[in-house]
Amino acid sequence: MTINTNRRTFIGGAAALAVSPITAKASSRAKAGAFPRGFLWGAATAGHQIEGNNVNSDSWVMETIKPSLFREPSLDAANSFELWPADLDLVKSLGLNTYRFSIEWSRIEPLQGEFSTAMLDHYKAVIEGCRRRGLIPMVTFNHFTTPKWFAGLGGWTNPKSPELFARFCERATRHLGAQIGWATTLNEPNLALQLWTTMPEVMHQLNPVFGPLKAAAARSIGSERFEMSNLMMLETAKQVLPNMIAGHKAGRDAIKSVRPELKVGVSLAIADEQVGNSAAKRDQVRSEAYGAWLEAVRGDDFVGVQNYARNVWNAEGKSAAPAAAKRNYSGEEVFPASLAGAVRYAHQASGCPVIVTEHGVGTDDDTIRAALIPAALSELKLAMDEGVPVLGYMHWSLIDNFEWIFGYGPKFGLATVDRKTFKRTPKPSAFVLGRIAKRNAI
Amino acid sequence: MTINTNRRTFIGGAAALAVSPITAKASSRAKAGAFPRGFLWGAATAGHQIEGNNVNSDSWVMETIKPSLFREPSLDAANSFELWPADLDLVKSLGLNTYRFSIEWSRIEPLQGEFSTAMLDHYKAVIEGCRRRGLIPMVTFNHFTTPKWFAGLGGWTNPKSPELFARFCERATRHLGAQIGWATTLNEPNLALQLWTTMPEVMHQLNPVFGPLKAAAARSIGSERFEMSNLMMLETAKQVLPNMIAGHKAGRDAIKSVRPELKVGVSLAIADEQVGNSAAKRDQVRSEAYGAWLEAVRGDDFVGVQNYARNVWNAEGKSAAPAAAKRNYSGEEVFPASLAGAVRYAHQASGCPVIVTEHGVGTDDDTIRAALIPAALSELKLAMDEGVPVLGYMHWSLIDNFEWIFGYGPKFGLATVDRKTFKRTPKPSAFVLGRIAKRNAI
Repeated sequence: MTINTNRRTFIGGAAALAVSPITAKASSRAKAGAFPRGFLWGAATAGHQIEGNNVNSDSWVMETIKPSLFREPSLDAANSFELWPADLDLVKSLGLNTYRFSIEWSRIEPLQGEFSTAMLDHYKAVIEGCRRRGLIPMVTFNHFTTPKWFAGLGGWTNPKSPELFARFCERATRHLGAQIGWATTLNEPNLALQLWTTMPEVMHQLNPVFGPLKAAAARSIGSERFEMSNLMMLETAKQVLPNMIAGHKAGRDAIKSVRPELKVGVSLAIADEQVGNSAAKRDQVRSEAYGAWLEAVRGDDFVGVQNYARNVWNAEGKSAAPAAAKRNYSGEEVFPASLAGAVRYAHQASGCPVIVTEHGVGTDDDTIRAALIPAALSELKLAMDEGVPVLGYMHWSLIDNFEWIFGYGPKFGLATVDRKTFKRTPKPSAFVLGRIAKRNAI
Repeated sequence: MTINTNRRTFIGGAAALAVSPITAKASSRAKAGAFPRGFLWGAATAGHQIEGNNVNSDSWVMETIKPSLFREPSLDAANSFELWPADLDLVKSLGLNTYRFSIEWSRIEPLQGEFSTAMLDHYKAVIEGCRRRGLIPMVTFNHFTTPKWFAGLGGWTNPKSPELFARFCERATRHLGAQIGWATTLNEPNLALQLWTTMPEVMHQLNPVFGPLKAAAARSIGSERFEMSNLMMLETAKQVLPNMIAGHKAGRDAIKSVRPELKVGVSLAIADEQVGNSAAKRDQVRSEAYGAWLEAVRGDDFVGVQNYARNVWNAEGKSAAPAAAKRNYSGEEVFPASLAGAVRYAHQASGCPVIVTEHGVGTDDDTIRAALIPAALSELKLAMDEGVPVLGYMHWSLIDNFEWIFGYGPKFGLATVDRKTFKRTPKPSAFVLGRIAKRNAI
């Protein structure tokens, strides 16, 4: 089963099947000028997508049941569990100053209540490895995958899920938190709602398979239940919303109980929802996909924005993309100005400073990525010049990796990874981003 | 549930609950003199017992079902998956020339037929790490733990088990075999038979729990079946015997198909079965516990002997230990001459050269270990002087580790491991063995 998409999401198929006849003159408006001192320039990864052999995670279970929604299992991924020093060296060599990565709850708490000193030591070494190289470590405490025991307890439908997550955050921060530069709790906890709001037809098609897949996954771990954090029915997405918001807040407070001064936020999946012929429809989409979260994060140190697309809304639905648009691997529009649009909205709706915690494109044609980066950053700089506080930009992704149900098909990396030798090789776009980072200007 | 034992075995409780009034004058007979040039002096470990977080293994399943026969789960063990360089440094620093360790099938073949390049690379690095330090790597291809999918297919009761194991051996040798110094296929495949033969009363007590435990383990992995390689009913032990022998031979041939000149053997659990008032009883025990295997290995490059105890047989059963005997952690006799007795028998019955692949004692009193090592080696040297070809001696174990159902209670290490920092600290006995190794003489 395949969902076309122009962004990388957990179940993949996100928004932006369509676009209005608006032409993309935006990039020509970009002003020259430096980014603020201390602007975070980075690349992002996630544990399950690069480490390999994350066998204790919910995703591994879903990847290996038969039949599976996944094109292939993650297996070795990029072997970053062993080769993380090569990843850090790559970030450094490009001239970036920040590395966003996640720690794997499935490894750190392999059994409920049993915390692995060995695995905490592992991630502490990664964080210290960043510092030794002069890189700022931005740590995602949970990037989608949860321990399979957590899924077996009902995942985020479990009323105890917020406190289970908070305990993990507290223990992890106590062990490895000293050198963390920036923290996020959850990655795209609004993703399921966004998908149900912006591509309901695809989700309705998928809906019938969720039940049998969950049942098979539950059986395979000897449980009655199985809930992942991002592959879910609409009613489940509504059910987990308050628990995930409570989980973010409890996790944030747990992290700050150990390191009160550490800046903590949450990363949200935000498409640039634009008005076609219906502001009402656009506003409804915003409200359903982002409203509760942008309300919940008011007062946070920052909000993480993860953007890959725009949607142009008419009363009848989304507009089609313009014929001349650049396309990503699945044929969807690549629209550089969408990032600035999402950032403006996130800031306006939440009042928070913004960090772009993900932005990128899945494509085998690196010239598209190399063009997208300066174009999107020019638009972002415009928004900043208008007064939107933006603290950093993390490109998704440092390296080609395991793209969830799409397996190793889509290529989002600034560098390729040889699937046999695991050798990383930067693409030209990596140097485009690196040059901008080193100059701190486009 | 606890089984007293003076040796480390998979389900723990091995032989030697008893001993005759024979006094241990043997060590006084030891001749001075050097061991042969090139004698292998080493220490031994096993992946599951030291690596930690071997979550894809059959043992992890059995450790984490509730109730469990295991005192505690293995969790981080000694964190040797990350700290293997510290282990190699320790072996080197003691003056030993060989390191016996195992590669984890559960990691290398996480799903049936899917071989992990990342994990093969991992063990290749360990092997190369030995060579860089001038250590000879002696590799156990399977030290008890199997992938849980293998257990779910019925373990060694599965008629296809020999070919599944052989395929693993072939793939592993192809990837990482170039620098291996010595190889063994299986570790103590005769253990269950030995336990049923030498301590039938304990095994009969355990027997009723095997069924429910296996059923619970099977349910927890969504399978109909579950069979571990060493925790089994008598009828299962008899059923797996031909498959394990076939597995050893197929594994050996697979290894040699890639590296024809590599010496390959199998390690057998062999107590020194002595005659009390009944040679017939002793011979019956030998036949049932070792006979088929010592027959099967005829023509092999060597046979690995793993000895921890003697049993003195009377028509009525085993003799009690003499009152003045040294005792191990569980109160059983420590009898230094048992090693030489087992080695003599293994050579005589198989015709093979011998490598002592395990020998040691579980005790909190390191003076017992420090005394055992030279005493047992003096007896071994006598046997060698008599003409028994012995190629090396691997002490069990390099470091304190996870002792199967007994958890972290019994201490077999030449070095302690801090359970929080994982720091290794050699005990005095380690230097006793090291001095002998460096002098190549007692």
